[in-house]
Amino acid sequence: MDSTSAYDRLKARFARLGHLGDAVGVLDWDLAAMMPEGGAEARAGQLATLRSISHDLLTLPEVGDWLDAAERDEAATLGDWDRANLRAMRREWRHAAALDSDLVEAHSHACSACEMVWRRARAEDDFAAVRGPLATVLDLTREIAVTKSQAFGCSPYDALLDAYEPEGSQAAIAAVFDDLAVDLPGILDDALAAQGPAPIPPNGPFPAARQRALAVRLMETAGFDFHRGRLDTSLHPFCGGVPDDVRITTRYDESDATGAIMGVLHETGHALYEQGLPADWRDQPVGRALGMSVHESQSLLMEMQACRSRAFLTYAAPIMADMLGDGGSGWDTETLYRLYTRVEPGLIRVDADEVTYPAHVILRFRLERALLSGDLTLGDLPGAWRDGMRDLLGVTVPDDRDGCLQDIHWYDGAIGYFPTYTLGAMTAAQLFQAAVQAVPSIPDDLARGDFGPLLGWLREHVHALGSSVTAAEMLTRATGKPLDAGVFKAHLRRRYVDRAV
Amino acid sequence: MDSTSAYDRLKARFARLGHLGDAVGVLDWDLAAMMPEGGAEARAGQLATLRSISHDLLTLPEVGDWLDAAERDEAATLGDWDRANLRAMRREWRHAAALDSDLVEAHSHACSACEMVWRRARAEDDFAAVRGPLATVLDLTREIAVTKSQAFGCSPYDALLDAYEPEGSQAAIAAVFDDLAVDLPGILDDALAAQGPAPIPPNGPFPAARQRALAVRLMETAGFDFHRGRLDTSLHPFCGGVPDDVRITTRYDESDATGAIMGVLHETGHALYEQGLPADWRDQPVGRALGMSVHESQSLLMEMQACRSRAFLTYAAPIMADMLGDGGSGWDTETLYRLYTRVEPGLIRVDADEVTYPAHVILRFRLERALLSGDLTLGDLPGAWRDGMRDLLGVTVPDDRDGCLQDIHWYDGAIGYFPTYTLGAMTAAQLFQAAVQAVPSIPDDLARGDFGPLLGWLREHVHALGSSVTAAEMLTRATGKPLDAGVFKAHLRRRYVDRAV
Repeated sequence: MDSTSAYDRLKARFARLGHLGDAVGVLDWDLAAMMPEGGAEARAGQLATLRSISHDLLTLPEVGDWLDAAERDEAATLGDWDRANLRAMRREWRHAAALDSDLVEAHSHACSACEMVWRRARAEDDFAAVRGPLATVLDLTREIAVTKSQAFGCSPYDALLDAYEPEGSQAAIAAVFDDLAVDLPGILDDALAAQGPAPIPPNGPFPAARQRALAVRLMETAGFDFHRGRLDTSLHPFCGGVPDDVRITTRYDESDATGAIMGVLHETGHALYEQGLPADWRDQPVGRALGMSVHESQSLLMEMQACRSRAFLTYAAPIMADMLGDGGSGWDTETLYRLYTRVEPGLIRVDADEVTYPAHVILRFRLERALLSGDLTLGDLPGAWRDGMRDLLGVTVPDDRDGCLQDIHWYDGAIGYFPTYTLGAMTAAQLFQAAVQAVPSIPDDLARGDFGPLLGWLREHVHALGSSVTAAEMLTRATGKPLDAGVFKAHLRRRYVDRAV
Repeated sequence: MDSTSAYDRLKARFARLGHLGDAVGVLDWDLAAMMPEGGAEARAGQLATLRSISHDLLTLPEVGDWLDAAERDEAATLGDWDRANLRAMRREWRHAAALDSDLVEAHSHACSACEMVWRRARAEDDFAAVRGPLATVLDLTREIAVTKSQAFGCSPYDALLDAYEPEGSQAAIAAVFDDLAVDLPGILDDALAAQGPAPIPPNGPFPAARQRALAVRLMETAGFDFHRGRLDTSLHPFCGGVPDDVRITTRYDESDATGAIMGVLHETGHALYEQGLPADWRDQPVGRALGMSVHESQSLLMEMQACRSRAFLTYAAPIMADMLGDGGSGWDTETLYRLYTRVEPGLIRVDADEVTYPAHVILRFRLERALLSGDLTLGDLPGAWRDGMRDLLGVTVPDDRDGCLQDIHWYDGAIGYFPTYTLGAMTAAQLFQAAVQAVPSIPDDLARGDFGPLLGWLREHVHALGSSVTAAEMLTRATGKPLDAGVFKAHLRRRYVDRAV
């Protein structure tokens, strides 16, 4: 009789699944950063086949049997990491096994079709054109949510959320967001009053090659390991690849040097998390990052907490002046700090500053729950969007292009994703505060371009944990308390009202 | 009862296998052209898993059953292309199903291990260091050859050859090569006497960016579709990717502008073949290229027949002077023609000219058959190499680094591959002759930079056929006769002795 344990069989199967997922990661990066247009159909075939094989390998009946046997007979003898690994396996399996493959495929096709229509509908400001395809996506997403909710014993929205934010709960998020929503308008008013007139930015043009050289230098300063990663260009910046081969992308605007640099530092935060994941568990679920909010916390900690600080800009300003400035003005620390901390209510989420960003997310969180439950119809979505933007940010939405058509998420079937952005911002503030409390030299270190102490703390308290604990456990262990909106609010006041950091 | 035919099931399975193979193609390209060193282990895992899944999907018992049923019950009702597709499926299946997966895996590991030792052994000129690992590779390759030969009913060498050159036969190759070997020394002597003193090449340096711009321009001239492909850099130039997304690579020597350009045009020949394969059969075996000798014929036709000709160089010389020359000398057609047709017996195959190249291949073909049969021991290999180089080319081999250690092939388990280079050169000469007979304007067209008529002929007579016929059938239909060494010999005399083309 074969004596291989059920858990060992699971490890072998999940290693294969990990390799398949990693291959998809590289092919997705290539699609965005390298692939010529003509390759689209072949690539779609490659990705669909890899995803379908992964789904099959994960949902074969033997996997459920192995999970049952390992949990029943073997879990007690496993170490902490292996037990956490087994839990992560069960989570992945639950999400895949809850749905039959016809539903998965129908949803996938509906999302692809809707996304294509959405691209034109957004360009032409024509919400009516995409309403039908979006209704189909929403119906199928609701079916997925309801099916999973019955299997998991939770609400439909929480069942969707769980795919992005393991153990997340809409009730907990709503409580934190409601708290934020109360205080944000006051912080925004105070920030607008405190920031003074708009600074005069440096004069371009800024050649892309020189922006890239500066970006590479600052990535290295921040600790990015180019032996295990690359920087390339793509239309929409992102962080992809695999932990020992992290691919980040950006785009360069030759008339504005500030955007790409901070975008790269944002993606560098994601990349440092990946590069710092536990090497001993590369192929296994427990070796991977926690959910999306923790991933976003790492990029926002790097960008918002560390790199937009006056401390870091003290270090970066002369380097930026040297590599991009050509002797022009606007490269002093104070001008850069004022540019990088400018607050202005606007229509577009991805262009929003740190103070107004949560309002964009809170609006989407409220609307997507109402859409899912049926309390809001698609016909009423554009109006609800306008009302929400007026109430939360005091801005008037002139059209749907810059309103409910601006983000790809819903049109691509991603409901339950938006809250992770603001959960990430709050987590970032709380982790950075704890890091500075533990290592008070961190602001001075950043002012000297030394990221070592900050990165060392993050490696120990976040990156090296992989998924061996939950996001909530990680945060509580690292900061002494669960997620607390107060820390984020205090950060906003210190930076944007006191203009102290 | 499910009425899906066995052949339709095979088509669906082979489409999946095609997608997996294409994914491997992109990941292999990325490994060589993009991947940072640190990504090697993760990539090895991705590729091993994809290959292992492919092997499993191809050798599941159902595939053999479907093949039997389709051949028995359905073949008569299929059209020509579908019948050819079914034959190609059977061929792929035969190669995979002949071997048990333990042998495949042992061979794969032995090759990886041997290749690693070989890299150092070559650098240190230490054949003894790699003799043990090479013996293991050879033993396992022999086991594979014998096992397949029993399944296929052919000689062990032919069983290996068949993986690179479907329907190839060592007896037929030996006859052609022996014929060549008789006449080559005389052609070489006459060529050396005819070529005159070495020309003075243009003076560098030649910045890589300008070489690249020239390469892109000439690729476009030759018909490469950048909507469906890319040009990048890698240590060892190659052509990879997939038909609608062909990735070719080169490397730039800033002190010599001639090498990279002709290397790119060589790879462009491979790429044009891929881009010209029948679009209706993308995912199926019949839609893929014929064996390696036909593939090599397309690169050598482009490089040797078309682009090293005086006609093409008449067109290219002023463009090269303009894009690389900086007003210097050596950019006239005649100097470039003399540089690009220079003959000199040497030690290294990959640096060899068109006249001496076949001798390198004939030596390897003779030695690898003797190694496989056991007539030659590894201990005697270095000496046999020296003897062969002296007899065939009159050169003295000073060490093993530039002798039997120079090529990766045997150390990586590729026995039966070498003859395809010279079969390709002969096929190229024969196809080009037929193209010019059919379209006499081709040399004048090339002298105007118009590749349309040549490419049109190749598209119709080679590329668009995919694998719907055998290589021998393609050649006979396109040129009116089977492979004929006489055409290649006549080409060598016309170019290198008469110096007429």
